[in-house]
Amino acid sequence: MESSAKLAPPPTKGHLSVARLSAYWYVACRSRDLADKPLARTVLGQPLVLFRDAAGAPAALLDRCPHRNVELSLGGVADGLLECRYHGWRFAGDGSCRLVPGLCDSAQVRGRSATSFATREGDGFVWVWGEADTPPAREPQPLTATEDNGYATIVRQLDFPGTLHATAENALDVPHTAFLHRGLFRGNGARKHIRAVVRRAADRVEAEYIGEPRPEGLVGRMLAPQGGVVEHWDRFVLPSLAQVEYRLGPDNHLVVTSLCTPIDDFTTRMYAVVAFRLRFPSALVRAVVTPIAMRILRQDAAILQSQSATIRRFGGEQFESTEIDLLGPHIWRLLRQAEAGPAPDPSEDLTVVREVELDV
Amino acid sequence: MESSAKLAPPPTKGHLSVARLSAYWYVACRSRDLADKPLARTVLGQPLVLFRDAAGAPAALLDRCPHRNVELSLGGVADGLLECRYHGWRFAGDGSCRLVPGLCDSAQVRGRSATSFATREGDGFVWVWGEADTPPAREPQPLTATEDNGYATIVRQLDFPGTLHATAENALDVPHTAFLHRGLFRGNGARKHIRAVVRRAADRVEAEYIGEPRPEGLVGRMLAPQGGVVEHWDRFVLPSLAQVEYRLGPDNHLVVTSLCTPIDDFTTRMYAVVAFRLRFPSALVRAVVTPIAMRILRQDAAILQSQSATIRRFGGEQFESTEIDLLGPHIWRLLRQAEAGPAPDPSEDLTVVREVELDV
Amino acid sequence: MESSAKLAPPPTKGHLSVARLSAYWYVACRSRDLADKPLARTVLGQPLVLFRDAAGAPAALLDRCPHRNVELSLGGVADGLLECRYHGWRFAGDGSCRLVPGLCDSAQVRGRSATSFATREGDGFVWVWGEADTPPAREPQPLTATEDNGYATIVRQLDFPGTLHATAENALDVPHTAFLHRGLFRGNGARKHIRAVVRRAADRVEAEYIGEPRPEGLVGRMLAPQGGVVEHWDRFVLPSLAQVEYRLGPDNHLVVTSLCTPIDDFTTRMYAVVAFRLRFPSALVRAVVTPIAMRILRQDAAILQSQSATIRRFGGEQFESTEIDLLGPHIWRLLRQAEAGPAPDPSEDLTVVREVELDV
Repeated sequence: MESSAKLAPPPTKGHLSVARLSAYWYVACRSRDLADKPLARTVLGQPLVLFRDAAGAPAALLDRCPHRNVELSLGGVADGLLECRYHGWRFAGDGSCRLVPGLCDSAQVRGRSATSFATREGDGFVWVWGEADTPPAREPQPLTATEDNGYATIVRQLDFPGTLHATAENALDVPHTAFLHRGLFRGNGARKHIRAVVRRAADRVEAEYIGEPRPEGLVGRMLAPQGGVVEHWDRFVLPSLAQVEYRLGPDNHLVVTSLCTPIDDFTTRMYAVVAFRLRFPSALVRAVVTPIAMRILRQDAAILQSQSATIRRFGGEQFESTEIDLLGPHIWRLLRQAEAGPAPDPSEDLTVVREVELDV
Repeated sequence: MESSAKLAPPPTKGHLSVARLSAYWYVACRSRDLADKPLARTVLGQPLVLFRDAAGAPAALLDRCPHRNVELSLGGVADGLLECRYHGWRFAGDGSCRLVPGLCDSAQVRGRSATSFATREGDGFVWVWGEADTPPAREPQPLTATEDNGYATIVRQLDFPGTLHATAENALDVPHTAFLHRGLFRGNGARKHIRAVVRRAADRVEAEYIGEPRPEGLVGRMLAPQGGVVEHWDRFVLPSLAQVEYRLGPDNHLVVTSLCTPIDDFTTRMYAVVAFRLRFPSALVRAVVTPIAMRILRQDAAILQSQSATIRRFGGEQFESTEIDLLGPHIWRLLRQAEAGPAPDPSEDLTVVREVELDV
Repeated sequence: MESSAKLAPPPTKGHLSVARLSAYWYVACRSRDLADKPLARTVLGQPLVLFRDAAGAPAALLDRCPHRNVELSLGGVADGLLECRYHGWRFAGDGSCRLVPGLCDSAQVRGRSATSFATREGDGFVWVWGEADTPPAREPQPLTATEDNGYATIVRQLDFPGTLHATAENALDVPHTAFLHRGLFRGNGARKHIRAVVRRAADRVEAEYIGEPRPEGLVGRMLAPQGGVVEHWDRFVLPSLAQVEYRLGPDNHLVVTSLCTPIDDFTTRMYAVVAFRLRFPSALVRAVVTPIAMRILRQDAAILQSQSATIRRFGGEQFESTEIDLLGPHIWRLLRQAEAGPAPDPSEDLTVVREVELDV
């Protein structure tokens, strides 16, 4: 072309808050979604095929037959082996090839392995290790607020058209709730002046809100029927956990844990686990919370869609933060440090890095 | 990839008749389309959000919140300020930030401006200056044939899938009308030999047709009920005005002014203003001309679609012109000179650059 | 962008089995599809317009008017000339321009030619030579099993979303049939041990199967009603012919000839000619074979779609072959040699290059 310029928005700094952390565990699917058929999932941009071996244990292979590169997820499971749809080659959970139909020289079967990924199963999820053909360096972190521990839970899944960073920041951001989710949770009454303390450790950052009045609406009322001040923490834990926790006295506890899996740079799948222990009957809470939670998640997804579209159109981000963007910048630093260096120490203590006043 | 070649059409010169003139006024929308809601428009590849301030004056900002880069056009207008849908930041028409909800330290509100574009309103259109955060170097040129001056007008808008150059050449090209628009305007009768004079000035080029018989069809009959020879000019004025003018005596006058706005390199929005002062009742003319004009515009849009698709597929243009391609090459030279140098002098006199015989 | 990496599958060797052989004949359309209207077809990535001249002979031009680059296929045929829809320029079958409406100086008509491609018509197909404005170096190869030679034929056309190499390998691959087409042709009974001999010449490769039992299903029964052992050859002939031939005694003969035309690097149009001379009535064979053949072709197309998608996603192929991938590697070598060097000698004798045992 004669000119390399084109009609376009003004250039940005070209920065993108994309970090790629592969030596970590990510949720690939819910346990109940993996039965007797192969399941295609994309994690960190890698197309995977999940299946259960003869013992029922989950296995994950790269979704590409080593023979002619057809998607293995088109095939089936036979005798605990994954069978390619094209020529019927069969693979075990560790990727090794066990059968090439028609081939008389069975020695040729060996060495034609599929690429495999370590898996774990726990808390109702199947986890995969982000690096192929690599033994995992640690175990996935179990959830704390689970049915086994006396919590009722709601699990929902939604794809966010945003980076992991944008999705996690959004999940933990307080100021937008009064606007974007007006009436669902905050934003109806007069604003109140409160204080937030930000604490950080090597693998996490959290904000504690002090003096926060009970949130509005039905959810707030079920959490704190008599009103009053709640305890509230928002936290991010590497590589991709975003958690919102509310407490009112010893009896009322609500934890929303969002397990995020980067599908690609601009798509993040969120597995949201809402766990609660309240005085109200669980069935009632569930009936009230589920539709509200889904509506909130979809409003957030629409905003992230717009944000991602703008960032792509402009060739990068150009963010102006204020001091009440409490966690976003910290999440970005955690992601970037983890991308550049070794996995951070999860046992490091939290230390206060900032105190801020804000109106909620 | 092993080979960088690919199955493809034969290569072209790679030339593209794309000029990018930013220090000019362009129509962003019709006045009546901008009410109490934000309006998203793209001009010169730049996504804009238009809204009316407290005084009703149009304002144009880059359609990206400086905070988290969400489209401002998703938001609303409150007290004459544009409010972002995500966190409720509010911006004035000049782009300055006036409110960050939740932020206690109001000093931080300053300096978080959105990018803004100068605007004007006139002749039923909202104009924007093509360069961000820049005072305009001149005023938009008012139309001459308007309702205030005793003309009846029809205004229509259509997107052309072509470059500004291709769209303007098409709007002003006589030879294609007898083929592409056969029966609607020309092409039914025997051809007649006429003469065209091409005149040029620094900011414009025009062709005058001498000895041209009355055009065919209902439009021609309303222009010249007794037949005869019409006066006819086609002209292009920088940066993007294409005008066709017919006259028969002092009483009959028809001017079609196409105000073109490049949306991107290959999409041009046309605001076509058909202005007429004829002996026939305006309502009748309007009823006859509107559907014919729209059909002609859509036939032209289909051709430009094919032209653009071919040019993209071949990686550039490869045009063979003859002497009856009267204006296209001149329009391209005007655009290219204006792109390379300062804005041309609009007061320069027209001089004859060519005389050509052609059959119409 | 800050980082050039992106979330992506593990890198491959980046190899792509794409060869681009232009100095050859390819089928552009069936004879019966080219009547009195222009027909748009893409061959080797080149958009062509086909039409019949005044004598009814097929002509092929690049589908781009030299004037303003509109697709000529939008136009019509007038007096055996192709007429552009935009300005009515007319072109003869050799690409020469014969008319520019409106132009008084007819000398300017000359030299404004469209790009043309040599054509031939035979066996019910229109062939084009893959290089523009170039006299063909030889003639297209006629089919042997035709209606004139006493065969009944079925002709079907299907687009395969795969490279020419992948499409031809698939068409000639035996091992996949028992899996992908289970029940339609092979794969229902016990496997049998047979022998295959691979023979090669400069322009072709073929596999002969020795001791192969009659294929299953209705097609197999019509070929060999009493069962027994069939003669069977699979062959590829440059640039793009894939042929499967079955014989049982002197009376039963079935030949499936797939004439492949690369539309682009990853799309191959197949014209499949099923020719047979069997003891069964042709109408009955036709009624049985046609739906089975179409079902097989569509199953193959779905597999090639998956293969191509995976290859593109991973940025290249990574194939692991065994010795029963009889023809694919040879086809690739033939294509690559032909791409690099002169056209191979079609009269060279076949020589044995390998003998393999396999189960079918």
